[in-house]
Amino acid sequence: MVDYSPALMTDMYEYTMLDAALKDGTANRPCVFEIFTRHLPEGRRYGVLAGTGRILDALEHFHLDDEDLAFLADRKIVSKETLDWLKDFHFTGSIKGYREGEMFFPNSPVLQVEGTFGECTLLETLLLSILNYDSAVASAASRMVSAAKDRPCMDMGGRRTNEWAAVAAARAAVVGGFQGTANLLAAQLYGLKAIGTAAHCFTLVHDSEREAFESQINALGKGTTLLVDTYNIEEAVKTAVEVAGPDLGGVRIDSGDLAAMAQRVRNELDALGATSTTITVTNDLDEYALAALQTAPVDSYGVGTMLVTGSGAPTCAMVYKLTERENANGVMEPVAKKSKDKATVPGRKLAYRSYEYNLADCEHVISGSESKLADFHAPEGWKDLLVQYVDHGEINHEHQGHDAIVNAHNYRAKALAELPITAQSLMKGDPAIPTETTVL
Amino acid sequence: MVDYSPALMTDMYEYTMLDAALKDGTANRPCVFEIFTRHLPEGRRYGVLAGTGRILDALEHFHLDDEDLAFLADRKIVSKETLDWLKDFHFTGSIKGYREGEMFFPNSPVLQVEGTFGECTLLETLLLSILNYDSAVASAASRMVSAAKDRPCMDMGGRRTNEWAAVAAARAAVVGGFQGTANLLAAQLYGLKAIGTAAHCFTLVHDSEREAFESQINALGKGTTLLVDTYNIEEAVKTAVEVAGPDLGGVRIDSGDLAAMAQRVRNELDALGATSTTITVTNDLDEYALAALQTAPVDSYGVGTMLVTGSGAPTCAMVYKLTERENANGVMEPVAKKSKDKATVPGRKLAYRSYEYNLADCEHVISGSESKLADFHAPEGWKDLLVQYVDHGEINHEHQGHDAIVNAHNYRAKALAELPITAQSLMKGDPAIPTETTVL
Repeated sequence: MVDYSPALMTDMYEYTMLDAALKDGTANRPCVFEIFTRHLPEGRRYGVLAGTGRILDALEHFHLDDEDLAFLADRKIVSKETLDWLKDFHFTGSIKGYREGEMFFPNSPVLQVEGTFGECTLLETLLLSILNYDSAVASAASRMVSAAKDRPCMDMGGRRTNEWAAVAAARAAVVGGFQGTANLLAAQLYGLKAIGTAAHCFTLVHDSEREAFESQINALGKGTTLLVDTYNIEEAVKTAVEVAGPDLGGVRIDSGDLAAMAQRVRNELDALGATSTTITVTNDLDEYALAALQTAPVDSYGVGTMLVTGSGAPTCAMVYKLTERENANGVMEPVAKKSKDKATVPGRKLAYRSYEYNLADCEHVISGSESKLADFHAPEGWKDLLVQYVDHGEINHEHQGHDAIVNAHNYRAKALAELPITAQSLMKGDPAIPTETTVL
Repeated sequence: MVDYSPALMTDMYEYTMLDAALKDGTANRPCVFEIFTRHLPEGRRYGVLAGTGRILDALEHFHLDDEDLAFLADRKIVSKETLDWLKDFHFTGSIKGYREGEMFFPNSPVLQVEGTFGECTLLETLLLSILNYDSAVASAASRMVSAAKDRPCMDMGGRRTNEWAAVAAARAAVVGGFQGTANLLAAQLYGLKAIGTAAHCFTLVHDSEREAFESQINALGKGTTLLVDTYNIEEAVKTAVEVAGPDLGGVRIDSGDLAAMAQRVRNELDALGATSTTITVTNDLDEYALAALQTAPVDSYGVGTMLVTGSGAPTCAMVYKLTERENANGVMEPVAKKSKDKATVPGRKLAYRSYEYNLADCEHVISGSESKLADFHAPEGWKDLLVQYVDHGEINHEHQGHDAIVNAHNYRAKALAELPITAQSLMKGDPAIPTETTVL
């Protein structure tokens, strides 16, 4: 059972800004906030957006109960008037953004939040937390899936990240192209395929490896996967086939030189007549290790640490910036900060991708006043990258739940295939396509 | 409000192993499992253990409700008999481990779990998730605090990691020496100091910077910290002192060359008579940046991304291994796997640290049969590193809650000061003290 509100999963300054803005009236100004990243992790060709479905789930539970309000009052974080305003808070604005599973590049708005300053401000930290982590995992997953070619990749990384991050990582991994997860809460919450059979301790708790294998076959059937590297792999494989017969489902190798060992185990299994017994390998894999294993006789991969830590890039460095707001005269006005190295492009954005014989593909970001944007018509063939997630407080539920994850998983494969083939290169380089920003 | 059970925050194979072990009787064998890391992140001199208090919180809520049991049944993960066993599950074993805030080194048992195979197995993933992430953050925090000398460090990283990881990170940061956090849920759950005033969007939503500053002073008082780098820093500082007077609490700089800018802002503030106005800097800091800022006139630091991602080491690579279990004859017996590069030392461990004129400090890990361990008496002056967290299912509550975090925070400073000074070096090198393993 999971029951919580994400309303305090936020930085204190969101509430102090709300408090000051309610006092001076700016809290009611219509605003546009946009989330984007200024750069991809070094050498990466693309990122994969994930987490928007989880944002919608969180929005549905974003409210403050009496305990939360008492906390804000006790700590004197906001005034009495602000507490009253918060009591019945729900987000009434609109959210557009990239599809889950879509490739993203620097300086394009992956999420666009419209509403009053007060309500948009409260969401900042939560939206960034979700998109930054989930997209980091989905981006790593997608590179791994490319490197694994047609072999299924499974998430086994839960133990190497925060226990809740593990649940989000499993979901993001599937958006990024993985087939399933070892994490049961993720399987329960999101309807994901769950996998797993036994660890080394199961062999060790028994008086012999043979007894452990017999017990596992007895409980899980011959289709199970036996872990064969607790003592001596070749003896274990022999024992495994003796116990289960040639119909043994699979074996797993979790140590040593995986390519060499997989070949030896494949030869041994074949010699024993267990030609359909599969081989899974699971030892500290990343996209480079998977690429190196392409010619080894491996059937599936379990990926852990490097998946849930984003394979060297554990966050996407996405930021949430105010780009347009109503001024004192009631007119919407583009705004931007001018901080050194952190300046922003003012104005609400449109975002398209054009496909022009592959090599000239381009991300087009169009900014300008509301009237100029309304007059803009994208050339034929440009894909509109922004879909509507929330319309004046109404959540589009088709972007939540299991089906949305399956759609995102399928969409990722399709969208990646439409990019120049260099996108799938593991060599360090520039983003696969450029982003062209036009201010109308 | 937060209400959940961590019982499904686990890998599926914990439940399938339980199922098979209940069928063959090994689930009831008394066992010892130990958590340790095989290596520190490259070049690191020490790690800081954190998360054990959160483990105790999680243990108190580790139960399966009807929905969870139905999930396990529907997915056919365990049998009817195992579901019955799980219905009233609570951990009745014992847990010892390192104090929170203690330095750790490779191959020493930071947590030791004793109980039946069944109950110990179910905890594996959760214990590792918590210790691996929390200790990664505390380890990074500790290096940053050393580099910051006496200047307070504050956690502002929530937006750059999973939204729940952010809460754990704030707690771990304080264990690691930080003074507070921007994260409100962490402040609420753990009684931490919360900080934060305003972001760039607060300046941008107003028609002028002056109006934004006036509004913030009006709501939060002159003691607040004004963010001065939205447009032009020097003009902003001038405006800030005009609006607040020379008693302005502080200013924050979030971009550019922080050392140079802090000096210019300090000069300007002093010239304006605001000599007690503090300067906080917050732009992508890590331990190296903090070390470089030691001579700049900065009063406190806000640290984000690099804190919550472990400053290049987002996990501690800790593992949970069965080291001893009862055999078929009812006798406790050390066990170990022999996997290539992943072999383990059999037997339950004792762990001590000796302090011998500093340079000969050493971590002593003593392993052996239960009778030999019982006969072992540590030499005078050796610190016993293992404290009792759970005794036959009874949790020692003094290791939970706010006071435990304060104790861990203070303990870290003391324990680090007792190590050779090289421990605090940011230069890459070997662990500050060696670990000597003795098998009796």
